[in-house]
Amino acid sequence: MKEIINLQHGGGGEETHKLLTNVIFKHLGNSVLNVKHDGAFLNLNGMLAFSTDSYVVSPIFFKGGNIGELAVNGTVNDLSMCGAEPKYLSLSFIIEEGFPMEDFEKVVLSIKKTAENAQVQIVTGDTKVVERGKGDKIYINTSGIGVVNPKADIKIQNIREKDVIFINAPIASHGMAIMSEREGLQFESDIVSDTRNLNFTVKKLIDTFGDKIHFLRDATRGGLASILHEIVSEIRLGIDLFEENIKVEDQVRSACEILGLDPVYVANEGVFACIADETIAGEVLAMLRSENPNASQIGSITSEHPSKIIMESAFGGKHVVHALAGEQLPRIC
Amino acid sequence: MKEIINLQHGGGGEETHKLLTNVIFKHLGNSVLNVKHDGAFLNLNGMLAFSTDSYVVSPIFFKGGNIGELAVNGTVNDLSMCGAEPKYLSLSFIIEEGFPMEDFEKVVLSIKKTAENAQVQIVTGDTKVVERGKGDKIYINTSGIGVVNPKADIKIQNIREKDVIFINAPIASHGMAIMSEREGLQFESDIVSDTRNLNFTVKKLIDTFGDKIHFLRDATRGGLASILHEIVSEIRLGIDLFEENIKVEDQVRSACEILGLDPVYVANEGVFACIADETIAGEVLAMLRSENPNASQIGSITSEHPSKIIMESAFGGKHVVHALAGEQLPRIC
Repeated sequence: MKEIINLQHGGGGEETHKLLTNVIFKHLGNSVLNVKHDGAFLNLNGMLAFSTDSYVVSPIFFKGGNIGELAVNGTVNDLSMCGAEPKYLSLSFIIEEGFPMEDFEKVVLSIKKTAENAQVQIVTGDTKVVERGKGDKIYINTSGIGVVNPKADIKIQNIREKDVIFINAPIASHGMAIMSEREGLQFESDIVSDTRNLNFTVKKLIDTFGDKIHFLRDATRGGLASILHEIVSEIRLGIDLFEENIKVEDQVRSACEILGLDPVYVANEGVFACIADETIAGEVLAMLRSENPNASQIGSITSEHPSKIIMESAFGGKHVVHALAGEQLPRIC
Repeated sequence: MKEIINLQHGGGGEETHKLLTNVIFKHLGNSVLNVKHDGAFLNLNGMLAFSTDSYVVSPIFFKGGNIGELAVNGTVNDLSMCGAEPKYLSLSFIIEEGFPMEDFEKVVLSIKKTAENAQVQIVTGDTKVVERGKGDKIYINTSGIGVVNPKADIKIQNIREKDVIFINAPIASHGMAIMSEREGLQFESDIVSDTRNLNFTVKKLIDTFGDKIHFLRDATRGGLASILHEIVSEIRLGIDLFEENIKVEDQVRSACEILGLDPVYVANEGVFACIADETIAGEVLAMLRSENPNASQIGSITSEHPSKIIMESAFGGKHVVHALAGEQLPRIC
């Protein structure tokens, strides 16, 4: 019989102990986690960044990744967007009774590998089990601590008129990978989630350009349009976008068209917007392109239409990019 | 019509923005949280403690508290058990579609009040919404950062033969408050959860006794017996307990008897075990009793039966306290 997670694994007794020993400590053990205290002891100094996210993506396994990979990269990236080097993560599971042990181990192994890639340590954690029908396989919370790069000065108030806006990669791949999986769509080439850690790219940007990098934000839930809307809603400036510079992979664009979705509202897991001083525009683009040839300058900051985002199409037409109303893609991350 | 949380509140668009503005920032706003970045910026130095817990208690409202209060006190207490002064919390919700907005606001207000009592700040957060039947009203993750008291040296390796073991309060109240609620039991006097913040008590202990406080652990899931088992499983020493010193309130004991539960395995939310050098036994007890007259010295560390816990009854009989096998009380925290 296939081993499954049951309520006893969440009871705090012997079965919990076994689950921790046989899966968590076996795969994720390190000198800090192994102390097995109620919390981890960390020696850190200076300005820190602290971030949290719960991951409820469905399905939990998809092309290009799984919920465990998302949970590590997502929090690594949130810390990176603060201009920080991510160092330590916490890891908390809410598992639905009946979840196959094999799948749990697969998720944990993926967490291990993703954390190694991003050079972060899992240092503390928690495991809860809920009854069948009170969860959905597995939900994961990761919280993280990073050390802010002393050269960084990332804040929304630093955004100025004429600043340029870049994205590091084509958009909408993660959301459409999940949707294709859910809808069972078949395309000639697979659509693969773009989940990846952005910390090393951000470190390079900040080490090189320092406080000329004014703002960073990863374009996850709600997509590129939503994070740009959050930005213009906080500052008295607007954004001009150039539609043809916002790259979307062909099969992703096809999937969006079939499902009637606008790629600018579709979630990403490895795309971030970088808002930088106009004087370094060419250098920033060159650096981003050295990692991804599809990185591009998608627009700029303007004082002409405060709090509005105007998109200019390849043919010169212009339209307002509205805030996402309603729920386009539930449980995308 | 009663306002409810729906999937759109988790979509990352306008509705998410409204939920955050009208509930979260309205009640929990502070100078760090209000930056609204992907993470919080914190200026901290020295040895830090970092802890995480997800709360899935059912029912979410119970006598003496609710899931929000538990989520704050639980992580505050985990940090305290590291000898740290809790400073900052993250807060992440997984809400089931259809959860009444009124209840959500009630939980958030309770979080606010509990955080104020414990003198910690909520500095970063996340909100996800899952479909009906994929969650259970609301699950909350809190992670926290504290600064380790420079006088503290709390580690399991510091536990020595003849060390004395204290608890600060009667046991089993939280678990039985939840069970009474679930089973609809009526007692002459209400059973009330013992959820409370332990950080100030711990600070007093450490400020006064320093490294003579060898170990601290709060007796949550699995109860007092389970945390003592975790301890003896990690050290080559055993524990002697005196049954009559382990206080249980009368109505809590009655409820345990009705339900056939042994109070030593029942969850607490405001009880911790303190293991201290025998030379300060009297002083520690006096300090704990100044806060709660039912604080007591429940036992001591022995080399006579390594990895075993032996309970001596009031009549001199002795029995082994076994590790909790199976799940006694699911979703107690």
